[in-house]
Amino acid sequence: MIRRAEPAAADTSGAGFGPAIVLVRPQLAQNIGAAARAMLNCGLTRMRLVAPRDGWPNAEAWPMAAGADRVLEAAAVFDTTEAAVADLAHVFATTARPRDMVKRVVTARGFGADLAGRPAAALAKTGVLFGAERSGLDNADVVLADTVVTIPLNPAFSSLNLAQAVLLVGYEWAMAHSETAADAVAYGTSAPAEKGALELFFRHLEQELDAAGFFHPPEKRTGMVRNIRNLFHRTAASGSELGTLHGIVTALSGRRLGGRPARRAPDTDG
Amino acid sequence: MIRRAEPAAADTSGAGFGPAIVLVRPQLAQNIGAAARAMLNCGLTRMRLVAPRDGWPNAEAWPMAAGADRVLEAAAVFDTTEAAVADLAHVFATTARPRDMVKRVVTARGFGADLAGRPAAALAKTGVLFGAERSGLDNADVVLADTVVTIPLNPAFSSLNLAQAVLLVGYEWAMAHSETAADAVAYGTSAPAEKGALELFFRHLEQELDAAGFFHPPEKRTGMVRNIRNLFHRTAASGSELGTLHGIVTALSGRRLGGRPARRAPDTDG
Repeated sequence: MIRRAEPAAADTSGAGFGPAIVLVRPQLAQNIGAAARAMLNCGLTRMRLVAPRDGWPNAEAWPMAAGADRVLEAAAVFDTTEAAVADLAHVFATTARPRDMVKRVVTARGFGADLAGRPAAALAKTGVLFGAERSGLDNADVVLADTVVTIPLNPAFSSLNLAQAVLLVGYEWAMAHSETAADAVAYGTSAPAEKGALELFFRHLEQELDAAGFFHPPEKRTGMVRNIRNLFHRTAASGSELGTLHGIVTALSGRRLGGRPARRAPDTDG
Repeated sequence: MIRRAEPAAADTSGAGFGPAIVLVRPQLAQNIGAAARAMLNCGLTRMRLVAPRDGWPNAEAWPMAAGADRVLEAAAVFDTTEAAVADLAHVFATTARPRDMVKRVVTARGFGADLAGRPAAALAKTGVLFGAERSGLDNADVVLADTVVTIPLNPAFSSLNLAQAVLLVGYEWAMAHSETAADAVAYGTSAPAEKGALELFFRHLEQELDAAGFFHPPEKRTGMVRNIRNLFHRTAASGSELGTLHGIVTALSGRRLGGRPARRAPDTDG
């Protein structure tokens, strides 16, 4: 080994500071433990679990954490990926294969560089999705993401396990963070809304589209909804912009069939 | 996992090309297997073993290699570290703690950059030492090295296992070696529509918003239009997605006041 385990200090540099690591439907508790170890090596402490197959907490995770108990003890559990990212404003999805979606794609190194430019408040609202050991992320998970992260290793033999994937992504975060921590600058003027607020917009839009008979034929609804959500995710809309989008949907549909009056549009952003 | 295991190809890019990975007195055969897996992920195939505790070959290594059998089968075994590096011209030693020696020290990233500048013939004479799981490298091993490699992770919790250390060092080799890998940022498979097509969508949307009385009061229209356009520009929508957006606007507004029928939504993207 390169560095030996030392007694965990009371605190670590950057603790609670980096992106949340979201393990989506992990199967083995041992892998959750190994991922926690990989995380803490990189100074990451915010673990989230979506529907872990074997329940949580699970005693089998602890031995594999090799002392990263604090990460496991603070892990938050969610039923769905949507819930796990509801309070995040920028979500990354790790995936090997190019999906048939228009998404920004970065390498793990590009991911580190991206995060390095964000102030602490923005980092706290950032998370990275990792799929299950065997199957990876579903398309429905990837849709929730703003950016796809790939690790461009040997195309003829790519077989990273879950903890190794977490390690490489966390490593790039740690490298980029330590290099640029001193001169982080402001990231844009208006912060993206939380994913939960985006979800409310989607429901509004889809409800009106249902009422308008947009989803036709019905069996295509799932794919159409996915593509529309994917498109709007890319806007990284601010809370104010989401208000505008709500206003647009309400205005366009509100007088339909002589129904509700058009809601006044919210003030412009900024 | 990020990338799934694929059938091992007959050859891999850079096979036999990168540095030799020298495991010095490894204890568990499982860890040798895991290290082989990490190596092949990074396109590294030249494994050397110095006095493996449980003998070699050892059947327990193979399951952990997850298909990187060729690395294990080609592993060369030596009695001493001196013998293992005898044909090498530049040796790196991975170690956490600064040793009481005057040696050049580089980070894993610096290691990658160092190797990237070497021609193939020089690379073939390069190797990296990794110590035993618990104890690391002896000073006697480090003395044999030209350069020390450190992985600057969380100083309060550094607990990389052998395979993880091999993975991170191999990863930096692979990143530096592959010119395309560094931090390429790309978009997905479907290209953004031309701006002229986006303009047509804006006109469609704004026409319907005008009809719905959305822009209120009128003096705010210019700023509101600008903000809405800005928002949709960020989607970098493909031609197919623009079709979907047209469909949404048409569906939401089409039946308004009993007017036009809702246009059938276009097929899903791609």
